[in-house]
Amino acid sequence: MSLLTRAEQALSTHFEQAAGVGAPPRLVAAMRHAVFSGGARIRPQLCMAVATACGDDVPQLTNAAAVALELMHCASLVHDDMPAFDNADTRRGHPTVHKAFSEPLALLAGDGLIVMAYRVLLQSGVQHPERVLALMDNMTTGVGLPDGIVAGQAWECETSADMGQYQRAKTGALFVSATRAGALSCGFEPEPWAPLGAFLGEAYQVADDIRDVIADAASLGKPVGQDILHSRPSSAQALGLDGAIAHFDHLIDQAAASIPMCSCRDMLCQLVQLEAERLVPKAVYEGYFKTHSGVASGRISEKH
Amino acid sequence: MSLLTRAEQALSTHFEQAAGVGAPPRLVAAMRHAVFSGGARIRPQLCMAVATACGDDVPQLTNAAAVALELMHCASLVHDDMPAFDNADTRRGHPTVHKAFSEPLALLAGDGLIVMAYRVLLQSGVQHPERVLALMDNMTTGVGLPDGIVAGQAWECETSADMGQYQRAKTGALFVSATRAGALSCGFEPEPWAPLGAFLGEAYQVADDIRDVIADAASLGKPVGQDILHSRPSSAQALGLDGAIAHFDHLIDQAAASIPMCSCRDMLCQLVQLEAERLVPKAVYEGYFKTHSGVASGRISEKH
Repeated sequence: MSLLTRAEQALSTHFEQAAGVGAPPRLVAAMRHAVFSGGARIRPQLCMAVATACGDDVPQLTNAAAVALELMHCASLVHDDMPAFDNADTRRGHPTVHKAFSEPLALLAGDGLIVMAYRVLLQSGVQHPERVLALMDNMTTGVGLPDGIVAGQAWECETSADMGQYQRAKTGALFVSATRAGALSCGFEPEPWAPLGAFLGEAYQVADDIRDVIADAASLGKPVGQDILHSRPSSAQALGLDGAIAHFDHLIDQAAASIPMCSCRDMLCQLVQLEAERLVPKAVYEGYFKTHSGVASGRISEKH
Repeated sequence: MSLLTRAEQALSTHFEQAAGVGAPPRLVAAMRHAVFSGGARIRPQLCMAVATACGDDVPQLTNAAAVALELMHCASLVHDDMPAFDNADTRRGHPTVHKAFSEPLALLAGDGLIVMAYRVLLQSGVQHPERVLALMDNMTTGVGLPDGIVAGQAWECETSADMGQYQRAKTGALFVSATRAGALSCGFEPEPWAPLGAFLGEAYQVADDIRDVIADAASLGKPVGQDILHSRPSSAQALGLDGAIAHFDHLIDQAAASIPMCSCRDMLCQLVQLEAERLVPKAVYEGYFKTHSGVASGRISEKH
């Protein structure tokens, strides 16, 4: 079974189990819409891949940890899409939750997903209380204050923000939680896996900035040009498109290099490189350079 | 030290500890505004009172449990006040978070407080992992799907809702979590304490409906007449004011009667009765009846 299939199956199973019986039907529908309208599932796959490298001795705990992180990610997307922030009508090619349901339900769906993430971990760890507590602590760090994704989003509300700190919190924090969770769900020391998450998270944010400039809305599944529109810090603005692509490639190299020695190192390197191509497809940026400047891509590394 | 003082001190201590260092300053300020702008602290006091009855052998865990529940309560108020719901300008006599800061920061402050609630429990239970897990499970039940306060709020978004189920979820659930938490933080069986929370929670909701009709905005600290305005289910609408006050009194009686036999039973009964008078002050509703009908109060019981 591929990691993606495993992630999707775990999400379906845990969502229904954690929703329970008798909840307001439209709230459950809004939460389901938030979670099951596409999505690359990169965070749960990362968690599962690292767990595989660590022996994955309690796969149901790994699954729960992976699902919980994806629910947190989906919660943040629902709230970020709302009129108070991006005011986005579409996400992954579908109507956003507040468009498909309503603003009140989007607000509550996000809240409900945050709490459901903890519920999923609590339901799956009866046999391993210490691991569950470590996983919850790790997830809380990735989401909350001072450096999690909620803090990252909040840096957009400050008059000044350090670009690195903003990006590390907004995207990197949950990637770090994902790689650390893979180790923690097996009772392993998480720190050796943190750099992989950090580099991938930063690469993901840079890729998002690049795609916001060059992609068409159809391939991105959400409106483009949002960073300029919302005056958000963007590496594509700060470094230029060439510079941002070079930075992205360097981060991918660092991510691959950071993977600890283990029997799954090759599998993990391959996952990183597949993800790099998915994030910033060569065909898309080369097409963009041809259309916009008539010169070839400035990408400095072709090895991915 | 009074329970209120203990609750306030624990809130201050745990808030700063859980916020950590380096978070976006306006986010922290918005969260602080949400938590420290008044509030009766009834949920943490209930938790602490029950813990006292159960021996309170790990007071720092009781404090953490009490604080975590109050943070959840504050989070729900921040989100409920937002334009998508009540669009309230004031709360407890102060500007609401979205008015004092902004809508984006109110959204994030609520999210941040939910996550902080778990952080507070995680930081305080190293010595007692099983109790912490039970407390987190209990809190998650009070907040999430299918019957917690998020679900309760979401019943307002359905075309039809059972009045009892709506009120039990919207308010009762977190009161039940509070009394159960008091027992759980001492390693006691929580179920005997659940009815106290359930009756008080229902009484609180009925009191809120009564106050929404009779109170002036100054004493309530928030706009009145909101239930009719937002077409919300209200016991004062359903039963009439006389009927709602009689129902409130009956619930208070049931709450007091439900308290399990213990050395603190008298103290707990007194707390319940003080809370009843605070919630629906005799002077206020008697004044209302004089002004609006010229007849005496229809309150059937005078023993509180």
